[in-house]
Amino acid sequence: MKKLLFVYGLLMVAFLIYLIDFQSREANASLEEKSKGLHGDIDEKYVMVTFQAGADYWKNILKGFEDASQALNVSVEYRGAAQYDVKEQITVLEQVIAKKPSGIAISAIHSDALDVTIYKAIDAGVPVVLFDSDAPKSNAYSYIGTNNYNAGVTAAHEISDMLNNNGKVAVITLSNNQQNQIDRLKGFQETIEGQYPDIKVVAIKNGKGNQLVSKQAVIDILKQHPDLKGIFVTEASGGVGVGEAAILLNKVHQVKIIAFDTDKQTLDMVKDGTIAATLAQGTWNMGYWSLQYLFHVRHDLIKLPNDPYTHDILPKMDTGITVVSRKNVENYYAK
Amino acid sequence: MKKLLFVYGLLMVAFLIYLIDFQSREANASLEEKSKGLHGDIDEKYVMVTFQAGADYWKNILKGFEDASQALNVSVEYRGAAQYDVKEQITVLEQVIAKKPSGIAISAIHSDALDVTIYKAIDAGVPVVLFDSDAPKSNAYSYIGTNNYNAGVTAAHEISDMLNNNGKVAVITLSNNQQNQIDRLKGFQETIEGQYPDIKVVAIKNGKGNQLVSKQAVIDILKQHPDLKGIFVTEASGGVGVGEAAILLNKVHQVKIIAFDTDKQTLDMVKDGTIAATLAQGTWNMGYWSLQYLFHVRHDLIKLPNDPYTHDILPKMDTGITVVSRKNVENYYAK
Repeated sequence: MKKLLFVYGLLMVAFLIYLIDFQSREANASLEEKSKGLHGDIDEKYVMVTFQAGADYWKNILKGFEDASQALNVSVEYRGAAQYDVKEQITVLEQVIAKKPSGIAISAIHSDALDVTIYKAIDAGVPVVLFDSDAPKSNAYSYIGTNNYNAGVTAAHEISDMLNNNGKVAVITLSNNQQNQIDRLKGFQETIEGQYPDIKVVAIKNGKGNQLVSKQAVIDILKQHPDLKGIFVTEASGGVGVGEAAILLNKVHQVKIIAFDTDKQTLDMVKDGTIAATLAQGTWNMGYWSLQYLFHVRHDLIKLPNDPYTHDILPKMDTGITVVSRKNVENYYAK
Repeated sequence: MKKLLFVYGLLMVAFLIYLIDFQSREANASLEEKSKGLHGDIDEKYVMVTFQAGADYWKNILKGFEDASQALNVSVEYRGAAQYDVKEQITVLEQVIAKKPSGIAISAIHSDALDVTIYKAIDAGVPVVLFDSDAPKSNAYSYIGTNNYNAGVTAAHEISDMLNNNGKVAVITLSNNQQNQIDRLKGFQETIEGQYPDIKVVAIKNGKGNQLVSKQAVIDILKQHPDLKGIFVTEASGGVGVGEAAILLNKVHQVKIIAFDTDKQTLDMVKDGTIAATLAQGTWNMGYWSLQYLFHVRHDLIKLPNDPYTHDILPKMDTGITVVSRKNVENYYAK
């Protein structure tokens, strides 16, 4: 009787072991299925590097960068020069490279001053992509951002429409060898000159990326050209200053302003009609695809050109532009 | 004694159960970690749609499409019009849409004839991206491929270099409203006219994407312009025909030919010097990023513009171009 109970007990236990083992295998199989896919390691760290690091403008780009890191299960870090200072950005970039991260996405404050440091990163095996503002002669793996020449072209077409293809216009830009500023100005000028013979660009002034400097520049231009009809501002900080100048001189209805980017103050001026339109960039996409691209280079998932010295023809992503006017401005507040 | 043995046995068995359970939990935890990341379901099917579906040209694009599907754990299917026939491609596209796939990547045979069918797909909730040849007025979510205007610009600079900025040139193109052909021709013409006053485009002929027609077209042009110095061929099939015409008329050393794409016959003619250079497209990247982009739209992972009617400014990917000459031709054979 006791022997029987003993055997009976062993059989039950054996069945129990079988059951647990079976269930655990099932669970594994289903997880195994899910484990296929693109994912990295949480120890893998990608760094986003900017300048004027506290500026609101970077927030949505960083959000894209973070969203991609979450999707791919890797880590990110945000670094940047505190000031608008070339040397400071180089120092920050060197510090970042020294830590040998898995990849670096950088918005270059200067079109070529960072090239040597970017070479160093690539030589050290750290993939680099540019976003927002390119360093076209660096050997970074890609540029992911606005096609800034086309943004200038779009601004030219918009302002020409508003002016019925006739009148004097001016440009407030940031003349510091930042590639995106160079390209926006060039696209605007070449389009006006090539396609709108009755529109004249009568002044191009350096607003220094500063609200007050931009305001004063427009006051000076309007003194010289009281019949000015339009102003294109090629960067975010100047737009509000230009709007203030137009208000101060009571020229809001005469002068059509095209601004850049979508900070709250600029949107407010679009809403109240001071600024006719502003150009919104695909900021989230810049961050998201920068991380994706770095991840792909890191994991040898992307086919790069056979010739390593053909870097200028590597895949680039144009993250697009949207014209924000009174009609659609509500969509662009704080997202 | 027997009772003791019974208890002893039960304890051992309990310990065994604990051990198995512990191990299975460990395995799960490690798999759970890996299961984070981008991955779909194997039932999710993405379809790539082409024309002249048997052409070698599509192979490397399909490879990219398949590689992405493997990385993301989804399925793919390849479909296409057998012939170079607009109606046939529309029929194929309609058949594909009827099956409600997870997404469609299409190279449009015509710049606008497929627009209505593409609207239908989007309305039915099937994401569509264009690759290789765009349909710019469709509301597809992106265009992933060569910036064909820039490819024409590159061809213009290359041929001007070879001709020391002086002489007569001709273009053999495919005049069938295929957007990539339109853009390549435009980029070439505008660059020559705008930047090289001593180079004249003396003839633009339709090679119909056919080797023999292209050959005859060049024979005709050379009869009229025996001092012709250069020819740009805007698509793959014509290059070899143009090379044959140059050989036939003993003009290989006089006439510099710039061809398109990298099929074996074209590469052979680059190698032996008949064709001066050919333009290689980032075909693998077209396929890879098309699938990635569709997957992102499908899974709501990408931020699309707020305004659904701003499709012309959606993110686009320029998959780049490489100039293939005698120097680097070996890198481009069968990969």
